[in-house]
Amino acid sequence: MPDDGAAAGAPRAAPDLPSGAPTLEARVLDQLFRSARTQNKWQDRPVPDATLQELYDLLKWGPTSANGMPGRFVFLRTPEGKEKLRPALSAGNMEKTMSAPVVCIVAHDLKFYDRLPYLFPHADARSWFAGNERLAETTAFRNGTLQGAYLIMAARSLGLDTGPMSGFDNAKVDQAFFAGTDWRSNFLVNLGYGDPSGLFDRSPRLSFDEACRLE
Amino acid sequence: MPDDGAAAGAPRAAPDLPSGAPTLEARVLDQLFRSARTQNKWQDRPVPDATLQELYDLLKWGPTSANGMPGRFVFLRTPEGKEKLRPALSAGNMEKTMSAPVVCIVAHDLKFYDRLPYLFPHADARSWFAGNERLAETTAFRNGTLQGAYLIMAARSLGLDTGPMSGFDNAKVDQAFFAGTDWRSNFLVNLGYGDPSGLFDRSPRLSFDEACRLE
Repeated sequence: MPDDGAAAGAPRAAPDLPSGAPTLEARVLDQLFRSARTQNKWQDRPVPDATLQELYDLLKWGPTSANGMPGRFVFLRTPEGKEKLRPALSAGNMEKTMSAPVVCIVAHDLKFYDRLPYLFPHADARSWFAGNERLAETTAFRNGTLQGAYLIMAARSLGLDTGPMSGFDNAKVDQAFFAGTDWRSNFLVNLGYGDPSGLFDRSPRLSFDEACRLE
Repeated sequence: MPDDGAAAGAPRAAPDLPSGAPTLEARVLDQLFRSARTQNKWQDRPVPDATLQELYDLLKWGPTSANGMPGRFVFLRTPEGKEKLRPALSAGNMEKTMSAPVVCIVAHDLKFYDRLPYLFPHADARSWFAGNERLAETTAFRNGTLQGAYLIMAARSLGLDTGPMSGFDNAKVDQAFFAGTDWRSNFLVNLGYGDPSGLFDRSPRLSFDEACRLE
């Protein structure tokens, strides 16, 4: 996958991470991983557009294959925008989604490779994908999904709660939002400030020995 | 997707995130996103197995669809383990991968749904996937990829550097490591402590207006 690539004179967000960065504090690991929950109810507290900009300006730094950045993000925060989504939602996801301050459609651009001459200028990376539809689609799906996970982690970093979902009709979303384009829906992420009264008890996780091998 | 689910008496890592968690400090956002780089050279500094256990014990909390956790992780840290991988690597990824202290094969279990009665006990979620091979495969790929991204973020949280890659022969990896099983390779992540002398200049990123829409 990356190759963060060499673009002479490209903008930098911050100096490179020094070798020997520390393990983050326990409270940070709790906020990002151990205490964070998928929320089903939301406080009546809006998410300003400026926060969505901050969110993107974090997630965009996460690594993708050949820096291709196929992920596309549609933030629905008006009643009209969310009504366009309603017919595609499954019954079980309806209420929590329609009541969320923001719903993000995590999508990807099947023609992401047309931006590679800009994003990965030191090789002819466009030619790896143009004309190879299957590789382009797999790469868009894999890397758009990675970027969706970066969005979840970036949201938690900003104190937002999330509610990711794949229980909806992708074809209906594509028709309603992406007709005539090369963007395709992947999954949804509700964004806001959670109301813990809607939480279930937390489900178990597979142990290291069940999910990992050492060789 | 999740639904973190309700498993009565399930183990908890930490109390739920309180509403109103803060935005994390700038140095933390740098370490996770803005300053973190995909590394191509590695310091001669090992990654203990205990750190890999810590890594999994963070990433496992990230959300997946119906808490299905299809991601599987094979950590190669012996010369023998890495030699099994060598024939599958593309030329451009060979040296940085063979010299990394640990290479993680991010994989997924196509039969992940057989664990749903344990992982998502409050509904018959297994029946959503059993007999629907296409949905199971898409769900395993999407959610295994999310978990691969959680691994990258968890590694950075522990002060590790990463080098994710999809430039390799998946079929050869599956043959060498997963023959006769339902596990399939997705992508690779080199893990260790980076040597910044191997870094390229950072590549540009798409702007908010190029990658996002507000509705």
